[in-house]
Amino acid sequence: MTRVISYDCTLRDGEQNEHVNWSLEDKQRYMEIAAPFVDVIEGGWPGANPIDTAFFDWAGGKNFGHARLAAFGMTGGRNCQVSDDEVFQRLVLAKTPVYTIFGKSWTLHTDSIIRVEREHNLEMIATSVSHLKQQQHGPMVVYDAEHFFDGYKAKPDYAIKTLRAAQDAKADCIVLCDTNGGTLPHEIVQIIKDVRRHIKTPLGIHSHNDSETAVANSIIAVKEGISHVQGTINGFGERCGNANLCSIIPNLKLKMGIDCISSEQMKKLRETARFIYELANLTHNKHQPYVGDSAFAHKGGIHVSAVMKRPDTYEHIKPELVGNHQRVLVSDLSGRSNIIYKAEEFGIDINSKDPVVQKILAALKELEHQGFQYEGAEGSFELLMQKALKSRKRYFRLLGFRVIDEKKKEDELPHSEATIKLEVDGKVEHTASEGNGPVNALDNALRKALEKFYPNLKEVRLIDFKVRVISAGKGTAASVRVLVESGDGKEKWGTVGVSENVIEASWQALVDSLEYKLYREESRSRSKKARPE
Amino acid sequence: MTRVISYDCTLRDGEQNEHVNWSLEDKQRYMEIAAPFVDVIEGGWPGANPIDTAFFDWAGGKNFGHARLAAFGMTGGRNCQVSDDEVFQRLVLAKTPVYTIFGKSWTLHTDSIIRVEREHNLEMIATSVSHLKQQQHGPMVVYDAEHFFDGYKAKPDYAIKTLRAAQDAKADCIVLCDTNGGTLPHEIVQIIKDVRRHIKTPLGIHSHNDSETAVANSIIAVKEGISHVQGTINGFGERCGNANLCSIIPNLKLKMGIDCISSEQMKKLRETARFIYELANLTHNKHQPYVGDSAFAHKGGIHVSAVMKRPDTYEHIKPELVGNHQRVLVSDLSGRSNIIYKAEEFGIDINSKDPVVQKILAALKELEHQGFQYEGAEGSFELLMQKALKSRKRYFRLLGFRVIDEKKKEDELPHSEATIKLEVDGKVEHTASEGNGPVNALDNALRKALEKFYPNLKEVRLIDFKVRVISAGKGTAASVRVLVESGDGKEKWGTVGVSENVIEASWQALVDSLEYKLYREESRSRSKKARPE
Repeated sequence: MTRVISYDCTLRDGEQNEHVNWSLEDKQRYMEIAAPFVDVIEGGWPGANPIDTAFFDWAGGKNFGHARLAAFGMTGGRNCQVSDDEVFQRLVLAKTPVYTIFGKSWTLHTDSIIRVEREHNLEMIATSVSHLKQQQHGPMVVYDAEHFFDGYKAKPDYAIKTLRAAQDAKADCIVLCDTNGGTLPHEIVQIIKDVRRHIKTPLGIHSHNDSETAVANSIIAVKEGISHVQGTINGFGERCGNANLCSIIPNLKLKMGIDCISSEQMKKLRETARFIYELANLTHNKHQPYVGDSAFAHKGGIHVSAVMKRPDTYEHIKPELVGNHQRVLVSDLSGRSNIIYKAEEFGIDINSKDPVVQKILAALKELEHQGFQYEGAEGSFELLMQKALKSRKRYFRLLGFRVIDEKKKEDELPHSEATIKLEVDGKVEHTASEGNGPVNALDNALRKALEKFYPNLKEVRLIDFKVRVISAGKGTAASVRVLVESGDGKEKWGTVGVSENVIEASWQALVDSLEYKLYREESRSRSKKARPE
Repeated sequence: MTRVISYDCTLRDGEQNEHVNWSLEDKQRYMEIAAPFVDVIEGGWPGANPIDTAFFDWAGGKNFGHARLAAFGMTGGRNCQVSDDEVFQRLVLAKTPVYTIFGKSWTLHTDSIIRVEREHNLEMIATSVSHLKQQQHGPMVVYDAEHFFDGYKAKPDYAIKTLRAAQDAKADCIVLCDTNGGTLPHEIVQIIKDVRRHIKTPLGIHSHNDSETAVANSIIAVKEGISHVQGTINGFGERCGNANLCSIIPNLKLKMGIDCISSEQMKKLRETARFIYELANLTHNKHQPYVGDSAFAHKGGIHVSAVMKRPDTYEHIKPELVGNHQRVLVSDLSGRSNIIYKAEEFGIDINSKDPVVQKILAALKELEHQGFQYEGAEGSFELLMQKALKSRKRYFRLLGFRVIDEKKKEDELPHSEATIKLEVDGKVEHTASEGNGPVNALDNALRKALEKFYPNLKEVRLIDFKVRVISAGKGTAASVRVLVESGDGKEKWGTVGVSENVIEASWQALVDSLEYKLYREESRSRSKKARPE
C-alpha cells in the first residue's frame, strides 16, 4: 500500500470561504478534532492578523498527536535579505515542525502584480526555502507553487525554473497549486507528466473547485505519482472551495487501496465533518459525498425495494465504513416499501397489505403539499404514523396562550413574556414565563406547565431550532417551516411545524417534541432501532 | 469544433433528490426555461405516476424550440412480448422525438433483483430498442446501460454483451451509466477505451456524484470520444446528485472549445441556474462553480488588491461569460482595498489614507463578532459606512412597540397584533396593525406609522425574509440573524439584524430597510452603481 500525506488547509485557506471566520478558540478546538484524521494541519499565517499570531503563541511546542502543525507564509526577501525580512521572520519564529511557503510561478504575477524581476523571484524562492531548511529544529519545508498550472500554461520554462529553485534549496515537498481552480483533469495529467521529467523532489497537489473537478484533479494526480494532497475538511475555501478531504481520503483508502487513515478513524469521518460544520457555524451539505445526510438516502420505490434486498445495488460503499447509514425517505414518490421500512425502524408492526399504509401515504402527500418535510423530523413522522394507526395519545389540551414582546425605547432589548393555560386529565394549569424572544418564552412556559404532570420532561433539551421561509415572494407574510432538534441525553429526535405564523409553526414543533418524548418513554420496548444522541 | 449533445435529466433523475418534487406546472415551466440550454430534456416516465402521465398528455406534439423531449422507461418484455407489455406500451404512446430506455448491465441485478435469466435480459434489451426504433415518427432511441461501470467491473463480457444487444437493435446512442456514482476518473478512461474496441454506436455518459467526481468523469469521457453527456441543472439528483450540467457545459465550451451552447445562451447560465433553484424551492448553492454568488467573490486583502489590477489573477474565466460578476467581500479578513472597492460601488468618496477607513474596518470586525454578516446585506453596510462618516441621518425615533400573539384554543391560528409609537420631527404617531405572525404585524405597524411622514415608503415591498440561528446549542435562546431583502420596483437591497430575540433582530433589519430607502431617495445622484431589481 502506497502512502499519501494528507495536508489540511481548513484553518488557513478554508477561512477564505465567504462564510467562515475562525476565532482563536475555534482554531484551538479544531486542532483537537482534526488531528487524528490528517497528517499535517496548516494553522495559519503567523503575524498576518492578531488571531493567527495568538494561535501560534499558544501552539508553540505543543504536541497534537497524529498531525504535525504547519505555519504558512510567503517567500521573503523582496526588498532585503530574508534574514532582515520582518514578515518572513515572523514565520520563522513560529518554530513549527512544518513550514509552508508559497511563491510565484506565473509571470503575470511577477510582472504585473508583485512587480519583481523574474530572476529575483527565483532567488526569493531559493533563499526562503534554504533559510527555513537551516532552522535548528529540523523542520519539514513545503514549497507551494502558487498558480503553477496557469503559470505553466503561460510560460512552461519559467514555471519549471521556479520549482527547480525550490528543489535546489532542498524543499522536502513541492506542491503544484491550481490556485484559480480552472484546470481540468486531463490537463493535470499532462502537466504532471512533464514536471516529473524535470523535478525529482516529492510532489504535492493543491486544487480548487472552480471547474467542479477539485477532488478528481487530486485523485488523478495521485495516480500520476503525487504523494502529498492538500485540501480542506468539507471543501471549505474561497470562491467554490478547496479540494474536499472528506471525499479524497475515502476515495484513496476505500477505492484505491492507498494508506492515509486507519479504518477506525475512517468510521468517524461523518462525525468529524459534521463537527467542523458546527464549528464553522455552517449548515451541513446534505448531499455531500460519503458524509452527507442524503449520501445513502433512497427515495424512489424501485430503489428502496432493491436496497432492502441488497444495499450494494444502489450504494457505492458500505455507509458504515465512513460512519454514515442508509436512509429511506418518505415523500410522494414513495411506495409502500418506504412506509414499511420506516414502520420497522420505529418498531411498529404493519403488514404491507394493510390499508393504513395507503392512508399514511395520502396524509403524507397532503402535508408535504402544505410545506411539511419529514426529512430531519422523524419524531413528527412517527407521531403522524401513530395518528393514522389511531394509537396516538394526547398528553394535554391547550386552553390558550399569549406571548407579548415589548420594546420601550430605542436602545433597549424587547422583553418577551408568555402565559399559558392547559389541561391534563381534568386538571388545569395556568402559568407564565419569560424568555429571550417569543418562541423561547413560549417554550419555557409550556415546559413549566407540563413538567408538573410529567417530571421526565426536565431531561429534554432543545439542541437546535431552525426557521426556513418556504414560500418566497410574500415578505414577512410568507409561510415558515420550523425544525426543532431535541435530545434527552440518550436519544435525539427532530420535529416540524408549518404555518404562516412563526409562533404557530414553532408551537407545533415544540408540542411534537415534548409529546414524542412522552410517547417514547411509554413505548421504548417496542422500538428496534434508536438513534443514539 | 466537435459537437457534444447535452441531455438533461433534471425532471426525471433530478426528482430523486431528497428535496425536489416537481408539480405538473413546475414541469411545464421547466421546459420553457431549460429548452434554450440543452439539446434533449427527459420529461419523466409516462405512466409511472399521475403527474408524469399528465405531463406527456400535455406535451404531445408540442415544439419546445431548441430542445427535443425524451420519454423515459424501462426495457419491456419481461413476462410477455414487448407489444403486449402494458408498462412499456405507455412509453411508446408518448410518441416523443426521443425515447430513452434503461436496461440491466450488472449480473447482480439480473440474478438477484429483477430475477431474469441473463439471456432473457439481452432479449429484453434487443426487442425493446428495436420496437421503439420501428415507430412511425422516426424517434431517436437512447439506450441507458444502468450500472454499466459496476457491471463491467463484475463481469466485463456480459456487460459488453448488453451493449451489443442495443447496438444490434440499432440504438442511436448507448449511454454508459455510473448509477451508483462510485467510479473514479482513471477507471472511466480505462473502461471507455475497452468499450470502444467493441462498440461502434455513438456513446454517452451518465454520472453520479457519490465520489465527488461526476463532472470530471463526464469531461474525461468526452476526451475519450464520448459525444452525449447526461446531467442535471445544478446537479440535482438522488443521494449526492447527478453530474452538474451548469459546470459541464462551460467546461466543454469555454475550456475545451467544444460546441454545445451559443455564447449568448451561456450568458444566461447563472440566471437559468438560479431560476431552477427557485422552481425547486431550494436555497441556491453560493459556492457553486460558475453560477454561485461566491464563485467570483474575493475576501483576502492580497487577492482583492490583485483582482482590482487584473481580474484573471484570481479568476479562472471572465464571470460575465456565464452571466456572473465579481464581488468583493467585507469581513475582518478585509484590507483597505475591500472598503475602498465598496465605497466606490456605493458612490461614496473616501481616500484610501483617510482614517475613517480604519474606523469602518474596526466597526465591521466588532459587528461580525456579534454575528452580523454584510454579504447579502449591502444596504445595512452602506448605512454603517454613513454612520462612520457621520453622515447618517435618522428619520424617526422609536418611543416603543408591543407585539401580542394570542392563541385561544387548539385548532385556531394565533392572532398577532402590534402597536407602535414613534416620533418624527417632534410629531408623535401612535398606531396599531395586525399581521400573519409577530414580525409581519410589527412590519405593518411600522410602515403604517411612517408612511404618514414619508409617503414614498409605500413603494417598498419585502421580497424575502430569512432567519438563521447563528449560535447552535442553546435551543430557542440562541442568537438569530435576520436578513431582509426589499425592493421598490427600481432597485433592491438587503438589510440585516442580529439579536437573541428574533423580534429585535427583525426590527433592526426592517428599520434599516426603510431608512435605506429614504437615504437612497435623498442621495440618488451620488450613486454610481445601482443594482437593478
